[in-house]
Amino acid sequence: MPRTAMALDVGGTKLAAAVIGDDGALLSRRQVSTPAREGLPALEDAVLRVVAGAVEDAGRRPDAVGIGSAGPIDPSAGTVSPVNIPAWRGFPIVGLLERALPGRPVRLAGDGHCMALGEYWRGHQTSRALLGMVVSTGVGGGLVLDGQIQAGPTGNAGHIGHMVIDPRGPACPCGGRGCVEMFASGPSMLRWAHAHGWCGSDAGTDTRALADCARAGDPIARQAFDRAADAIALAVLCAAALADLDDVVIGGGVATGAHDLLLARIRDEVRRLAGPEFIRRVRIEPSALGGDAGLLGAAALALNPAAA
Amino acid sequence: MPRTAMALDVGGTKLAAAVIGDDGALLSRRQVSTPAREGLPALEDAVLRVVAGAVEDAGRRPDAVGIGSAGPIDPSAGTVSPVNIPAWRGFPIVGLLERALPGRPVRLAGDGHCMALGEYWRGHQTSRALLGMVVSTGVGGGLVLDGQIQAGPTGNAGHIGHMVIDPRGPACPCGGRGCVEMFASGPSMLRWAHAHGWCGSDAGTDTRALADCARAGDPIARQAFDRAADAIALAVLCAAALADLDDVVIGGGVATGAHDLLLARIRDEVRRLAGPEFIRRVRIEPSALGGDAGLLGAAALALNPAAA
Repeated sequence: MPRTAMALDVGGTKLAAAVIGDDGALLSRRQVSTPAREGLPALEDAVLRVVAGAVEDAGRRPDAVGIGSAGPIDPSAGTVSPVNIPAWRGFPIVGLLERALPGRPVRLAGDGHCMALGEYWRGHQTSRALLGMVVSTGVGGGLVLDGQIQAGPTGNAGHIGHMVIDPRGPACPCGGRGCVEMFASGPSMLRWAHAHGWCGSDAGTDTRALADCARAGDPIARQAFDRAADAIALAVLCAAALADLDDVVIGGGVATGAHDLLLARIRDEVRRLAGPEFIRRVRIEPSALGGDAGLLGAAALALNPAAA
Repeated sequence: MPRTAMALDVGGTKLAAAVIGDDGALLSRRQVSTPAREGLPALEDAVLRVVAGAVEDAGRRPDAVGIGSAGPIDPSAGTVSPVNIPAWRGFPIVGLLERALPGRPVRLAGDGHCMALGEYWRGHQTSRALLGMVVSTGVGGGLVLDGQIQAGPTGNAGHIGHMVIDPRGPACPCGGRGCVEMFASGPSMLRWAHAHGWCGSDAGTDTRALADCARAGDPIARQAFDRAADAIALAVLCAAALADLDDVVIGGGVATGAHDLLLARIRDEVRRLAGPEFIRRVRIEPSALGGDAGLLGAAALALNPAAA
């Protein structure tokens, strides 16, 4: 009988749990909105419900557990402190899952790491050096070298959203300046568009209206996507020079809704600015897994400790 | 009896060979100027002479051979094509050393990789993620993660000189634009200083006169070093965000002669622009090994295949 994993994806917007086979098949999947502004009991209850529901739907107890979570996280302590879930500061989510599924090993990684691992496992297993990018409310990522996710000494490797690409760029809430995230995250794109006279929807992190305007020819909306693409291209160029990348896979809510506006420009900028063939050769692709990449990566984390 | 390595360092300016023990001790060392503009026989002869001389001085045949060479190189083919040694294009240097020291395994890596590996082995063995930077006629480097040099799929990982840090920057001979090397290499610094009215020595890649002028208060000379430091700081920031670095070790002829002009500015820029603690924490240090880092790394490559 094939082994299966409980995969849990923890975000500020949604909580998803799935039972996934070692062939990558989703045997069940449950999802709820994250009660991000509520207290600990509501949060714990939401996690336990999606987990129990996915187990029930799959009709079997999984053999191992993998958790991908919005950061910061502390994999060695087994705790998470997602920026957008204020009640969880150093929350021991590994312990919660150990109690929910006794006797099952539980592993924890950042959501960017899980996305990259999922893309590697299910989409790009021949890639020797893959960067997964999550372009969403923030910009994150993960680096998979020779099939291994690179956690880094503090668990923060692959954090391309805070690469500094413009020393004269805007101040970032992280305390830095000119970070990729200040150009390419959904909120940054919307903020810039509004500041430059775009009159579209104010809806928080939703860049869909902005994308529609860009497609309709609005020059400010178009420029907001160009700035994001140019920032992503610089991150790709630096990562390719450092890690000799085969593949960059771009996912996340903002990018997935706007690949038509972003990908060609990113590729053009990379070709325009890159000299050495080992940098020019990098393949830049949209995520083939969409919203399931994080779940699949969490399953890979659980089922193949060697790959994580 | 401890194992020993023949370490060979191939550069456009010098050829160095050393017999090095597995404790890092140099048992012998020979060095000659590279007959870079002469033909194949003169080059082969120069290599064989420093190698035989070092073996003779050490009084023993080494157990393994490691070669660090200026690039491009092709580790799988065992060939080197150093930009500054025109007669060597796809030159089979691994075969040459196999014939010189029969029965000894020969390994080949780029000089930036060997420098980083040498710094890790002899200076920073507790570092979990180390970037070695060679700031010289060009700007190269190597990434050592968990004690392993990262070659990358094509052998080009760690090539920070061609990270693009300014999309509006000067065109680079590599075909790209705004590369670190266009700000921080010796020739780039001299070219910029001359173009801005500095009247010092014209001597090719020698930045010593420029450094002396900067120390004496010449504002153009000072600015040439500041531009280099700022470019290096951006490379450090991007590498630290991607690889969660513990250490950056800066060596190479230009940097080694001007640490007093570069290091403080690099550290200040990194602290000024970096937000997240995992980036701010990076230690930025001058090479402790100086010109021997490449030889020591080549020895590490030879004696510990697991680390390379």
